[in-house]
Amino acid sequence: MAYDSTSVREILDKARAEGREALTSPEGKLLCDAYGIPIAGEGLANTAEEAVDIAGKIGTAVAMKIVSPQILHKTDAGCVVVDVVGEQAVRSAYGEILANARSHDPDATIHGIQVQQMVTSGHEVIIGATTDPTFGKVVAFGLGGVLVEVLQDVTFRLAPVQATDARAMLDDIAAADVLRGARGAEAADTDALADVVRRLSDLVTDFPEIREFDLNPVFAGSDGATAADVRVLVETGEVTQPEQRSQEEILRTMNRLMKPDSVAVIGASSEEGKIGNSVMKNLINGGYSGDIYPINPKADEVLGRTAYAGIAEVPGNVDVAVFTVPAKLVPSALEECGRKEIPAAVLIPSGFAETGNDELQQQVVDIARQYDIRLLGPNIYGYYYTPKDLCATFCTPYDVRGGVALTSQSGGIGMAILGYSRTTKMGVSAIVGLGNKSDVDEDDLLTFFEQDDNTNCVAMHLEDLKDGRSFVETARRMTRKKPVVVLKAGRTEMGARAASSHTGALAGNDKVYDDILRQSGVVRAPGLNEMLDYARGLPTLPTPQGENVVIITGAGGSGVLLSDACVANDLDLMHIPPDLDQAFREHIPPFGAAGNPIDITGGEPPSTYEATIKLALRDPRIHAVILGYWHTIVTPPMVFAELTVRAAEEARAAGIDKPIVASLAGDTEVEKASDHLFEHGIVAFPYTTEKPVAILGAKYQWARSAGLIIP
Amino acid sequence: MAYDSTSVREILDKARAEGREALTSPEGKLLCDAYGIPIAGEGLANTAEEAVDIAGKIGTAVAMKIVSPQILHKTDAGCVVVDVVGEQAVRSAYGEILANARSHDPDATIHGIQVQQMVTSGHEVIIGATTDPTFGKVVAFGLGGVLVEVLQDVTFRLAPVQATDARAMLDDIAAADVLRGARGAEAADTDALADVVRRLSDLVTDFPEIREFDLNPVFAGSDGATAADVRVLVETGEVTQPEQRSQEEILRTMNRLMKPDSVAVIGASSEEGKIGNSVMKNLINGGYSGDIYPINPKADEVLGRTAYAGIAEVPGNVDVAVFTVPAKLVPSALEECGRKEIPAAVLIPSGFAETGNDELQQQVVDIARQYDIRLLGPNIYGYYYTPKDLCATFCTPYDVRGGVALTSQSGGIGMAILGYSRTTKMGVSAIVGLGNKSDVDEDDLLTFFEQDDNTNCVAMHLEDLKDGRSFVETARRMTRKKPVVVLKAGRTEMGARAASSHTGALAGNDKVYDDILRQSGVVRAPGLNEMLDYARGLPTLPTPQGENVVIITGAGGSGVLLSDACVANDLDLMHIPPDLDQAFREHIPPFGAAGNPIDITGGEPPSTYEATIKLALRDPRIHAVILGYWHTIVTPPMVFAELTVRAAEEARAAGIDKPIVASLAGDTEVEKASDHLFEHGIVAFPYTTEKPVAILGAKYQWARSAGLIIP
Repeated sequence: MAYDSTSVREILDKARAEGREALTSPEGKLLCDAYGIPIAGEGLANTAEEAVDIAGKIGTAVAMKIVSPQILHKTDAGCVVVDVVGEQAVRSAYGEILANARSHDPDATIHGIQVQQMVTSGHEVIIGATTDPTFGKVVAFGLGGVLVEVLQDVTFRLAPVQATDARAMLDDIAAADVLRGARGAEAADTDALADVVRRLSDLVTDFPEIREFDLNPVFAGSDGATAADVRVLVETGEVTQPEQRSQEEILRTMNRLMKPDSVAVIGASSEEGKIGNSVMKNLINGGYSGDIYPINPKADEVLGRTAYAGIAEVPGNVDVAVFTVPAKLVPSALEECGRKEIPAAVLIPSGFAETGNDELQQQVVDIARQYDIRLLGPNIYGYYYTPKDLCATFCTPYDVRGGVALTSQSGGIGMAILGYSRTTKMGVSAIVGLGNKSDVDEDDLLTFFEQDDNTNCVAMHLEDLKDGRSFVETARRMTRKKPVVVLKAGRTEMGARAASSHTGALAGNDKVYDDILRQSGVVRAPGLNEMLDYARGLPTLPTPQGENVVIITGAGGSGVLLSDACVANDLDLMHIPPDLDQAFREHIPPFGAAGNPIDITGGEPPSTYEATIKLALRDPRIHAVILGYWHTIVTPPMVFAELTVRAAEEARAAGIDKPIVASLAGDTEVEKASDHLFEHGIVAFPYTTEKPVAILGAKYQWARSAGLIIP
Repeated sequence: MAYDSTSVREILDKARAEGREALTSPEGKLLCDAYGIPIAGEGLANTAEEAVDIAGKIGTAVAMKIVSPQILHKTDAGCVVVDVVGEQAVRSAYGEILANARSHDPDATIHGIQVQQMVTSGHEVIIGATTDPTFGKVVAFGLGGVLVEVLQDVTFRLAPVQATDARAMLDDIAAADVLRGARGAEAADTDALADVVRRLSDLVTDFPEIREFDLNPVFAGSDGATAADVRVLVETGEVTQPEQRSQEEILRTMNRLMKPDSVAVIGASSEEGKIGNSVMKNLINGGYSGDIYPINPKADEVLGRTAYAGIAEVPGNVDVAVFTVPAKLVPSALEECGRKEIPAAVLIPSGFAETGNDELQQQVVDIARQYDIRLLGPNIYGYYYTPKDLCATFCTPYDVRGGVALTSQSGGIGMAILGYSRTTKMGVSAIVGLGNKSDVDEDDLLTFFEQDDNTNCVAMHLEDLKDGRSFVETARRMTRKKPVVVLKAGRTEMGARAASSHTGALAGNDKVYDDILRQSGVVRAPGLNEMLDYARGLPTLPTPQGENVVIITGAGGSGVLLSDACVANDLDLMHIPPDLDQAFREHIPPFGAAGNPIDITGGEPPSTYEATIKLALRDPRIHAVILGYWHTIVTPPMVFAELTVRAAEEARAAGIDKPIVASLAGDTEVEKASDHLFEHGIVAFPYTTEKPVAILGAKYQWARSAGLIIP
């Protein structure tokens, strides 16, 4: 689009030069004009004739008000007249306002009388932009009045938005039906609204010094949309953009960090109970086959490996230095690493920013920057990368290889990841602690995992993002290929920020994270347990090829709960066509229910489960299968599990791989049966109808956003 | 209140006599007048002078429209004029409407011209009543326009409502702030609105033949509320109320059913695999010490017990007959039970209404009624009552005694209850299958459990309620004493009902169940797994004495997630007073965080956990404690569990019993530690921060509704 950037630059420079935080209304209008944002016509009149002239050009009813720095409460001073129509009325309003202004304050400086188009018909919406501390420029859209102010029915997107994103925002609010013409009202011109959103997003992107921008209200009729008022706040200080590394730069080091050929342990120790001892033990017992160099000036060897007094003395190249020394010893040792040209340092020790010692952390970061060392941590448990049998951590080794990489900002959550993984035998490629994130963050890890063939799913616990915009960019790229699950902690914490604009105030909650993470294709886990379940389940399930989900159940009661769960997880219960219905009916008792759920009834033998499952797998119109098993003497749990695995494997051999999830209701034997199913690619849980369906729902959410399902 | 019931009776009788389903607008208005519901003034004019007279009495602008059975689309026919002010205008509108009516349809019967007060200022709300198939008369309240129609922001209550309930409805909608005067608008006269709700609820209660009643819109200003329009639908057929047993009547039989001294098994068998064999085995192996009478005409004894050819031949009294014969044999055997005066029959067999055989089920119900036998089932797994070691089921015995009674409508869910109970060693008083609920339902069971000293919590899975009103009554009484958890399946199923009124249409979803269950003090579980977790957790926790919740955590990351969970579960994180803050600080490292969560930091020894937990238990200002444990070498899981149990037991010995829940993050040893904690009255889970807090939240929800916490 052709924008008049020069005018905008002039206005902003002038306001900033004058140290102003807010633009005047005419300045705001000029910004709108420069970017083609339709705004109510207006002009500044210094004579009654000028007022008549402006009103004539506007051509509709106008509002008139004084422009004077001294007269703040214009209405109280009798300096506002609305709904003025016709030459005579404009003239008389002009005189009235001027007289009232003079009698209100004879010394007031009067810049003139503003004549403004009155726009009041159509749907009232708010379109705005603000600068989020995490994500930078975001645009907001909501319905005006009660909906946005009382119910906070508003949606956010990272700026700039594409046309399709801008359209999607209009559908993304709870009251979207209103714009579509619910209750017999006129439908809004959504093209025009989306266009305003896009133009505003371009404006704030082109001019980062615009801090907040409200178009409130915007009136949208069936043909066009016009903003009635504009409010613009600018940054008074310097505007800087976070520095960013190139993808190549990130990968060069991340590959050496995650797949090192040699690891040095700074502070390696033979003494039981020391962190330097635990890390050494885990590296060795974990089976790491690269070189391990213990660094300890007081030892000749540690756990049978030759020890070195300092890193400089290590004979070969070192990819990673794992620090297990107290915080205060880190800076000098890190300098040595720098001189040895070690590209990555893993800082296990605590005692940095998390204990208030920001200075020490900054010192370490400065040294790392000087020597171009990437830092993981500090204040972490370390990290695992199973394809290299690497357990560089003070926890215990973990060796079940698999496709999911997990990261956590908090050590406690890291321990929960480890325990959950071990108890469920979850196949893992990596577990990484991020701690204080003094350098390496989720963004760097995603960039690595994206191209890591050993990883097909990533699950991340995070409390904040250092650079949300960069994370979204990486996540967007990554989630086209592999699912990313995010547990965002602190979701209910209201951002305690001072916002002067409406949009700024609305952005002060978790909704910004929610909308933007979704926009980046990330599946957001509602809690820790869900994050772990999704991490375990998502790589287990193949990607569905379409939206048709079928429930086959032995228990009618489970069928109802599974249907509830489908609705809750945004899954489409397939409408079964008559021929398929007939085919299912041939396998189930006459009093069973075909349709969907397909209720095969409780007393059925294994053959009924088997025939219906096979039918569902074979029919190409069905894309995913949910099983509700009911424990009976006729079909015991392991019999069910084995027949299901057999059916799935037969289908896979025939080139059919559909997601299958199962809910097992029964006595404790269903636990073993669930494990057996899970081990064979079927996501199964005992005593719950919700969990398997939630995991299927998460898989669908990812597949849809990755464009892998054509609706 | 003084209501004019006579007028209402006359109007309704007339309409019903005429076979009309809908009242006319003037009739509706008369109903409002009779019950003191303020409604816009109106009258029917047959001359222009009459119209002027009516308009004069109303005293504001009026709307005028034709009243003619033939002219349905009044506006199109030019037979509606609004905003009429003044004698002259009324006269001219009268003439215009009449002329247009005649030209539209010269043969139309004209009853006159309706002159109606125009009310359009103030908040627009909808107040209505409908007849719910489950709950009978319910009243609804919502904000008019977009909020109720697009966002379905509406709330329901069982009619009649008390004044406090009516007031609570106004606060119960999402947009409640609007009525309180959000956005600088005038606050609504909530007393007047609540009064309308209450009067309407009285009206529909007094006259059950009123099927649906819409006051839409009602305009509420700062002083009063006036309905602008009324729509009333009546039942054209006979109106019957469900018959109800007295509490004494219910208890007399339920006590014999649940605590029988003797049980007969109709169809008892020695043959492995038969249901009659499983039930016999479970009764014997379960340790039931009452008399067991196997009934089998072809055997002399079954499993060592003397068998009888028929129930008539049993020498002693029989409290319960458990049926294990095929469905078609039930009626004749049930008649024999009737003649033997057996008060309760447990019908395990399927093949009744659930397979479409409604007739057979009705036959059985008729026989039961004739002989005054209460029926459990048919189509159930049976039931357990552990205080009597009674396992009258074809499943397997269960013997962990405890305070929770569980019931399920579905057999599959029953099996999940059994499996979950066994694997978690949940202490249970009863597990009861309800199946087709041909007779005994949740209501009867609640009446029994209410007075059963062996039961202190009830968890129910249900798909429908036979008589919702009676359930609510019983639940209201019961939940004052003991928590009731309900898993309502089919919650997302839209009621497919034909509704002619606005309120009727709004009531066609799960919101009615949700509001009314909450109103009855029931804790609604969002899913099966939560129902089971609540059932296990609620009786474990003592009742909190106040709202002050404190989090003590070793992992900052868990602290954030636990705080999120508190907000999600409506728990108040206590604002810690300075002296208490200081007291906590004395135990934690300087870089730890006091406040709430209290972050003792990860590297701390057992003594830090112990000191802070003891402090939290001792301080009377703290009412509940959430623990976030982080697995470290310094404080291993079992050490944490044991010290916590010790602290809790010491406190209990000193007469302090506060709810404590714990989230354990760590390697697999945390599973054993969680079990140990649970066994000692502390609700603890590994790998989740959400579950323990959700259970505490459920306990609080119950305690608040039971009036046990003074806010």
